[in-house]
Amino acid sequence: MARPIPHIVWKRDRLRVLDQRELPRRIVYVDCRTPREVAKAIKDMALRGAPLIGCAAAFGMALAARRRSVRALDAAAEVLVKSRPTAVNLAHAVSAMRELARSTPPAGLPERLARAAERYYRDDLSFNRRMGVLGAALLPRGAVVITHCNAGALATSGIGTALGVIREAFRQGRVAHVYADETRPYLQGSRLTLWELMQEGIPCTLITDSMAAHLMKVQRIDAVIVGSDRIAANGDVCNKIGTYGLAIVARHHRVPFYAVAPTTTFDPGTADGSGIPIEERSAKEVLELSGIPIAPVGARARHFAFDVTPARLVTAIVTEKGVIRPVNAARVKRLLG
Amino acid sequence: MARPIPHIVWKRDRLRVLDQRELPRRIVYVDCRTPREVAKAIKDMALRGAPLIGCAAAFGMALAARRRSVRALDAAAEVLVKSRPTAVNLAHAVSAMRELARSTPPAGLPERLARAAERYYRDDLSFNRRMGVLGAALLPRGAVVITHCNAGALATSGIGTALGVIREAFRQGRVAHVYADETRPYLQGSRLTLWELMQEGIPCTLITDSMAAHLMKVQRIDAVIVGSDRIAANGDVCNKIGTYGLAIVARHHRVPFYAVAPTTTFDPGTADGSGIPIEERSAKEVLELSGIPIAPVGARARHFAFDVTPARLVTAIVTEKGVIRPVNAARVKRLLG
Repeated sequence: MARPIPHIVWKRDRLRVLDQRELPRRIVYVDCRTPREVAKAIKDMALRGAPLIGCAAAFGMALAARRRSVRALDAAAEVLVKSRPTAVNLAHAVSAMRELARSTPPAGLPERLARAAERYYRDDLSFNRRMGVLGAALLPRGAVVITHCNAGALATSGIGTALGVIREAFRQGRVAHVYADETRPYLQGSRLTLWELMQEGIPCTLITDSMAAHLMKVQRIDAVIVGSDRIAANGDVCNKIGTYGLAIVARHHRVPFYAVAPTTTFDPGTADGSGIPIEERSAKEVLELSGIPIAPVGARARHFAFDVTPARLVTAIVTEKGVIRPVNAARVKRLLG
Repeated sequence: MARPIPHIVWKRDRLRVLDQRELPRRIVYVDCRTPREVAKAIKDMALRGAPLIGCAAAFGMALAARRRSVRALDAAAEVLVKSRPTAVNLAHAVSAMRELARSTPPAGLPERLARAAERYYRDDLSFNRRMGVLGAALLPRGAVVITHCNAGALATSGIGTALGVIREAFRQGRVAHVYADETRPYLQGSRLTLWELMQEGIPCTLITDSMAAHLMKVQRIDAVIVGSDRIAANGDVCNKIGTYGLAIVARHHRVPFYAVAPTTTFDPGTADGSGIPIEERSAKEVLELSGIPIAPVGARARHFAFDVTPARLVTAIVTEKGVIRPVNAARVKRLLG
């Protein structure tokens, strides 16, 4: 795993979190000593990315377990699950930890939940590697790809989901160049994805989100590769705002559209994308940049943080258990088993 | 015309230009005393918008005419035409002024070209009003529309092209709400369009460019309305980067897509969009936002300033001479006469 700068560090009495809001300009860590502090780091986007949010929530529960009380765990679960509504990995991690706590005597809680959180983190890491191999096989040699947001090492515990595929494909000579959408309003593309790719020497170019359609018209693009925050039972893919428009534009140009996500991102309890809660964040994040206003005083804005790409626009979903293709409810069900 | 703050002021010995790069934070004017200074204001985007660039170029030629020499006019024409390649209004205005100069004795040049530039400006203003009326008629009562970039009073000499239609439609009760794309990288939407709409009390909300597709899915959108920088003989519409993706997304949701442009924006000499030069601007404008770096040091970026929407994705083109619908070469030819 090429990550010279660790993004979460488990210290048993606290979770040390790299503040991704400060990247690429500054390397700053935030120490979370309580589940509430972990929830705040998630809510305020000091760390982000569905798989990493899941890992952080597991460690948040492990912190709560240090109080050796089911009540403390219940309270922690509530505050953690509320921190962000869309990524299902968070809810999955919290409920898995809660389940485990039920069969554990109070005295054993700290040790058992800490181990479980560490395992959850290690599993995500190995899922990344497996998805990287499976996803790379989908690409032709020397592919030019577009990615959106940051589904990289910074969003997971390993090499990333979408960027994990890109890393492995680059290693195999299957990816020659990556165009990264800047991903407004949070600029995860310009701040985080470019930073990761440049560190590894993967040739990459930044574009604004609005340039992808033009780029597909004027040069060969072999694939769009994105991560996901929640995948419904029918294969509808919820991901960072802008993904849906990118998928429409990819279909228009007959460019394959791949989503890469571990099975922990699937939500079999939600029939289709219409049941996925779309977080709406503060308008301020659209009206300002680094605290500087970029719109008139008093202006209104919407800030949808995610959108849903219907299964019919998704060429394939790459998971650690295999590739779902074509994407439909039957194939999703078969893979999840 | 609702413009409390004039954006170009002709003073005979100079053209005073509102520096749109500073909006909405500061009202700053730049004085251009030579054609070269006008060209610099255009190139550096102190003023922008295809029709306004045309007007400014006409005044630039009027400034050159003060030297009472055809050679000075030739030199001015060259520097002005080179300032920005995509908007055809600029080339049209310059060549019309040159044509006029040929039939004018040297002593009469200053007066005649100044009058012609003033007329060019007034014509554009009356075109705006006519397009406003013709375009508003296309909208249902209480329409909710999306616009991209700024095709408003700031981009023209009048009430605007796309925003001229929106203004007139709002007056008639046909527009209830406007969603404005922020329009990266220059943010003409958040800085200029929102500013214009708020000044007139037209209800408006800012979105990032990447939100339009999601918005069309979750609420009724009655039309997309944009301006244009050049329209080819077959009706292909060149406009601010992001327009093409927006048109694809509108077609996907069966939302009508209207382009609004005076006939001075048409280029009958270019058969289709593939012949329109797409300006590529400095990568710096993508790597920085309001002068603040938003990507890692050393990052590469592309900055396509425009894209082309093929005629088949354009529901209608509104001109001062009438509405082209359906959009094809025969209809364009018939309208241009």
